[in-house]
Amino acid sequence: MTNQVIEAICSRRSIRKYSDRSVETDKLVTVLEAGTYAPTGHNRQDPIIVAVRNSGIIKTLSRLNAGIMGTDSDPYYGAKVIILVFVPKVEDNPNAVQDGSLVLGNMMLAAHSLGLASCWINREKQMFSTPEGKLLQERLGVDPAYEGLGALSLGYPLKPNPKPLERKKDYYRIID
Amino acid sequence: MTNQVIEAICSRRSIRKYSDRSVETDKLVTVLEAGTYAPTGHNRQDPIIVAVRNSGIIKTLSRLNAGIMGTDSDPYYGAKVIILVFVPKVEDNPNAVQDGSLVLGNMMLAAHSLGLASCWINREKQMFSTPEGKLLQERLGVDPAYEGLGALSLGYPLKPNPKPLERKKDYYRIID
Repeated sequence: MTNQVIEAICSRRSIRKYSDRSVETDKLVTVLEAGTYAPTGHNRQDPIIVAVRNSGIIKTLSRLNAGIMGTDSDPYYGAKVIILVFVPKVEDNPNAVQDGSLVLGNMMLAAHSLGLASCWINREKQMFSTPEGKLLQERLGVDPAYEGLGALSLGYPLKPNPKPLERKKDYYRIID
Repeated sequence: MTNQVIEAICSRRSIRKYSDRSVETDKLVTVLEAGTYAPTGHNRQDPIIVAVRNSGIIKTLSRLNAGIMGTDSDPYYGAKVIILVFVPKVEDNPNAVQDGSLVLGNMMLAAHSLGLASCWINREKQMFSTPEGKLLQERLGVDPAYEGLGALSLGYPLKPNPKPLERKKDYYRIID
């Protein structure tokens, strides 16, 4: 039993190598819109999505993230678009992480359906807690009461998607 | 710019009224499989998915959840299938909540694509922290080190899905 949605869900992969091809604005907007349609607890729609195409800001994000990771490689894999998702602190919204995760999930799937590739990148909470990160968050126009939850690197894949990795046994069970 | 995946994402709603029609096993399995294809941090595939169709256990789940909520209504809206998602404690996996949320998100979308309706229900963490909840978790075969993250009520919708609610302004921005 399948359909195009199921097929997209089961064939999506996290991709870490991107081609030089730019992401068209209409595709980017479609991905971002898909993110906004994620359900949120009590329909609060609290997450804030920021897509960064500015190469200078991308460099700064890369440097901040690498600093947290303790490397000098690019944690965003050279992607020309980085999509940041910010959420309220858990004290301000107990569903903040869940809500923001569903936003990221919708965008990953929408991207895949449009022939784009993405990868969820972490460490944004720590990045935007540094003095430089706090200034950047302000520059991006995001409420300082919000925290970074995660990001997507977004681009065209360099190669066709590999097949999905095997799923663990007993991932699910049905209790009758 | 659209396709069947984008359409599914943008038309899905959280549904709280279900018809008496049972969910076919092949559809349920397809939904559960879709959940297993959610990406997880470092491909740990830690979440555990338990679909409950046993009416006695559904009654217990409902009573436990209502107890946390402080009501005597059914928090699962009379659905004949409840899908529970358990994850490790955050101390054991820092991406536990994000990973489990993506599992729930994939299942919600897969369900919608198959003509099923669902709603994310909370309070499972508290439910499975009670003495009765801990025993039930053991009975369901779930590692006692795991916590309840969330659940889906699943069934056929009683009515056609209403249109999505309006999205907030400035949900996303593009920084060039």
